[in-house]
Amino acid sequence: MIYYLGLIGIAAFSITGVIAAGKKDMDIFSIVLLGMVTALGGGTVRDILLDVNPVFWIADLSYLWVSLLASVLTFFLIRYVTHVLRLLLFVDAFGLALFTILATEKTIDFGFSAPVAVLMGLITGIAGGMIRDVLTGRMPLLLGKEFYATPALLGAIIFPVLSYYFPLHDLNRLYAIGIIFIIRASAIQWGLYYPRWLTYRKRN
Amino acid sequence: MIYYLGLIGIAAFSITGVIAAGKKDMDIFSIVLLGMVTALGGGTVRDILLDVNPVFWIADLSYLWVSLLASVLTFFLIRYVTHVLRLLLFVDAFGLALFTILATEKTIDFGFSAPVAVLMGLITGIAGGMIRDVLTGRMPLLLGKEFYATPALLGAIIFPVLSYYFPLHDLNRLYAIGIIFIIRASAIQWGLYYPRWLTYRKRN
Amino acid sequence: MIYYLGLIGIAAFSITGVIAAGKKDMDIFSIVLLGMVTALGGGTVRDILLDVNPVFWIADLSYLWVSLLASVLTFFLIRYVTHVLRLLLFVDAFGLALFTILATEKTIDFGFSAPVAVLMGLITGIAGGMIRDVLTGRMPLLLGKEFYATPALLGAIIFPVLSYYFPLHDLNRLYAIGIIFIIRASAIQWGLYYPRWLTYRKRN
Repeated sequence: MIYYLGLIGIAAFSITGVIAAGKKDMDIFSIVLLGMVTALGGGTVRDILLDVNPVFWIADLSYLWVSLLASVLTFFLIRYVTHVLRLLLFVDAFGLALFTILATEKTIDFGFSAPVAVLMGLITGIAGGMIRDVLTGRMPLLLGKEFYATPALLGAIIFPVLSYYFPLHDLNRLYAIGIIFIIRASAIQWGLYYPRWLTYRKRN
Repeated sequence: MIYYLGLIGIAAFSITGVIAAGKKDMDIFSIVLLGMVTALGGGTVRDILLDVNPVFWIADLSYLWVSLLASVLTFFLIRYVTHVLRLLLFVDAFGLALFTILATEKTIDFGFSAPVAVLMGLITGIAGGMIRDVLTGRMPLLLGKEFYATPALLGAIIFPVLSYYFPLHDLNRLYAIGIIFIIRASAIQWGLYYPRWLTYRKRN
Repeated sequence: MIYYLGLIGIAAFSITGVIAAGKKDMDIFSIVLLGMVTALGGGTVRDILLDVNPVFWIADLSYLWVSLLASVLTFFLIRYVTHVLRLLLFVDAFGLALFTILATEKTIDFGFSAPVAVLMGLITGIAGGMIRDVLTGRMPLLLGKEFYATPALLGAIIFPVLSYYFPLHDLNRLYAIGIIFIIRASAIQWGLYYPRWLTYRKRN
């Protein structure tokens, strides 16, 4: 069940990655590479940092094929996809929530400490999009302003806290995924921003 | 023989890397770093993803020295190098063909599946140039438009297919290298592009 | 002693990283990520290339906390920090010198050859700042022009040379750290540049 939800999340990451970063006159090769980097990049960075071998998409090729297929279809169906873009943003939010918490949990299960697990959850959720932005010449650090990384960070912090206080509770994972999804979905729906006192005001 | 051809390919990657990315008033340190990243970057990403230790240029320092020497010489001889730039593009095309197929073959020999081997071949061929472009503020994903990555991908796909149907044929490697080289050389000679239906047309 | 100096260096890298790259209206999340990437990025790339597991800030969380704390404080105290910016540049120079030489020494102790150790020292000193620049849309390779990477390279070369000729001399490390610090500090004080014959003059 979680496995298939994961594949749906990978597909959503690929599609929104292509739509967010695709530029006019870019060839199909670059477009598909963009979609795959967005979907698989975060987990790849996590596996390299934790020295998990082989990397998840080498260990199980399904992720690769789903991402490839979703990116190619997006290329050809882009005219129709934009009609359901808003729906896709919510599926993407679900993918963000799912991957962040699954990675946090996996890192704890490997025996790493909670702060490392929080960071690995965050990296899994957002690094793919950051690599994509670097490859297309955008400033990835503006991601934060869109309230994309922040919900992931909050959920990744809440999960080990819940697990500490309610160690045998089966629903901790679900609660943490829900928190990320709800904050991110609210941000999509109502456009949340950081308050002024939490944005940088350099002199001059 | 293949080993020495590989060193020539590394030198060509370093030289064309410096020429493609060097900008006016850049210091010698940055120029040499550019050349070395272009030549060694792709194989480094491959070795990290496959957890091959140590990375190839740490295991055999020849690659490092050849790349360093070629980059330093290019810095001082740039006025003369541009006269033979066209020739260098073809040597670079040969390096692309050689590294892509050798990496594909090496990955299969390590026991990974064919799709992983194709990706590793592609990454070995193009990731160095992509990192160089990121470091100099270009958009690496336009690489595709120049028909640089696409020939590498085609050759990397054809090689395991040939190996599957003609498992004992010694020339499969040569054929695959030849295919990449011929397509890339044709692109240099006649300027090939993706047809319009394979380029991205976002609405608006 | 060296350990605590290292934590001070990490704090200085975080603070100068935030100040160098922070842009108006960037949210606190991105700012803190910038500071942490600057401080921890170089050592992370080194540990991945050498396959040191786990990466240093996973093995000892102190580095993570110091970097996090320094980045958050910089965000809130930026108005006051700029008053001591010049002092911070010298602390940053000390961090550069320390990390470069400690990494060079550590790599030699692991049994790698001197050229690899020199590169790892250099990477540890400068890669964090380069990743930060990539994430904020700057051209990292202009680093060289500021005489930041060059002193690190010189010190990283001098250290194994000293160790070769005076193998039992306890002060080699100190001399190499001092050389980097003095050259970098001179560059901050008097603005050193590469001479014209060592900068790139592409035709046209």
